[in-house]
Amino acid sequence: MNELELVERLRRMKGVSGIGDDCAVFHPKATEDVLLKTDQLIESVHFPKTMRAETIGERALARPLSDIAAAGGDPRCCLVALAVPRTKSEQWILSFFRGLLSLGMKTGTVLVGGDLAHDDKVHCSVMVVGAVKRGKALTRAGARPGDQLCVSGRLGKPWTQRIEPRLALGRKLSGKATACIDLSDGLSLDLHRLCKESRVAAKLENIPIVRGATLERALHGGEDYELLFTLPPRVKPPAGTTRIGTIVSGTAGAVWFAGKKLPPRGYDHFE
Amino acid sequence: MNELELVERLRRMKGVSGIGDDCAVFHPKATEDVLLKTDQLIESVHFPKTMRAETIGERALARPLSDIAAAGGDPRCCLVALAVPRTKSEQWILSFFRGLLSLGMKTGTVLVGGDLAHDDKVHCSVMVVGAVKRGKALTRAGARPGDQLCVSGRLGKPWTQRIEPRLALGRKLSGKATACIDLSDGLSLDLHRLCKESRVAAKLENIPIVRGATLERALHGGEDYELLFTLPPRVKPPAGTTRIGTIVSGTAGAVWFAGKKLPPRGYDHFE
Repeated sequence: MNELELVERLRRMKGVSGIGDDCAVFHPKATEDVLLKTDQLIESVHFPKTMRAETIGERALARPLSDIAAAGGDPRCCLVALAVPRTKSEQWILSFFRGLLSLGMKTGTVLVGGDLAHDDKVHCSVMVVGAVKRGKALTRAGARPGDQLCVSGRLGKPWTQRIEPRLALGRKLSGKATACIDLSDGLSLDLHRLCKESRVAAKLENIPIVRGATLERALHGGEDYELLFTLPPRVKPPAGTTRIGTIVSGTAGAVWFAGKKLPPRGYDHFE
Repeated sequence: MNELELVERLRRMKGVSGIGDDCAVFHPKATEDVLLKTDQLIESVHFPKTMRAETIGERALARPLSDIAAAGGDPRCCLVALAVPRTKSEQWILSFFRGLLSLGMKTGTVLVGGDLAHDDKVHCSVMVVGAVKRGKALTRAGARPGDQLCVSGRLGKPWTQRIEPRLALGRKLSGKATACIDLSDGLSLDLHRLCKESRVAAKLENIPIVRGATLERALHGGEDYELLFTLPPRVKPPAGTTRIGTIVSGTAGAVWFAGKKLPPRGYDHFE
């Protein structure tokens, strides 16, 4: 199967639309802002060589969807840049897209374009386009001293666990939370980032941990994909979320836990 | 330099805006459609290992910009997913972005987000977001029998030649050309694609060739990044463009040259 034929097969898959032009065209509503996010998924870096094609495809979309959730938005469409070794069959590529499109259809994310190439290993970048009510995107920058610090789910998941982007929660938080970030590099690093952008500090009080995980993993593990957010003092945290601390004034980005300063030690590709 | 510090350096560079949140936010005008395009640039596949960081950065942006030109649009912003070997210095990464941002500033394309990772070789995907008057995006699908087939510049350039995205020409063609595509995989393959989408055939008459190139290279070489477009019969082709043939009725996608059927033999990653 050559590239022309492969693209023809992809165009006919459910959840795909508009492929076959130099650019995809997206029609935003006048009342909305457009959200943009891109994330890479690289063999042996972000997933083991043995992971199934469907799972890789799903994961490649799930990661940027988690960021759309953190901005309180609705995903609309995506573009996929995929490089695969020559040894991979067309079946492998179609399976990858089946996995991606299955999550795409569940979340309303239509595949509208992309780019295929050969490389030594599987390397994928997915760009997701979302929408949010104009001026209502959640950012990392709005947390204020006195705000409650909350998180969805439990932390310390193993890195190959299925990602469930918290889109429904993100939509619920839009207009309510003062700041929000998704936990993709570990609580200590991502909380540091949120605090730095908001020019505040944070005190962690209690951490909900998944069964079997260590506190160390829950604090510094990098693959939870839960939402970390701040709420004004008297707002009740939504169901399924836990208050884990408080925003305080102090050095921008400082995080305190059990009376000690917690270093940002999550996943940093460049350390 | 760790990732946090590197991102801080990038945020302060000219031509960068809004980095430091889970998503970038883009504000489209109500009268515009949004154009989306992603393209990969992979070491040893799309460029030689010895290419300078600035040149790679510029080229990584120039390729998707060429597609925005082919849609008749204006580039607005971009996201960059970049993976580099651990052996590359921060200086290399900053030089890559300097090259990219220099073309970004020339063309009005602001860097608004991205993703950094380590990999065995340089691998880059750039996603460009553009804008075009609502309903006015040029596509591959509107060519009609009798239309003039035209191309900008001369064909058969060497594959490492600097890419100059034909943005001004694209804007000029919007509302005038019946179909348009950028030549990124070679004339024979890209013309085949345009004709297939338009359900027409084409007759090539004369090809403007760059000095030193062969006809073979001009027909099937893959890196010209000129615009191939169709105009209604009596419309004068813009300055700097050449009429190279005529759209005819026939098998969708068929291309005729010198009395023979020309096979689509440009660059296909999967053949």
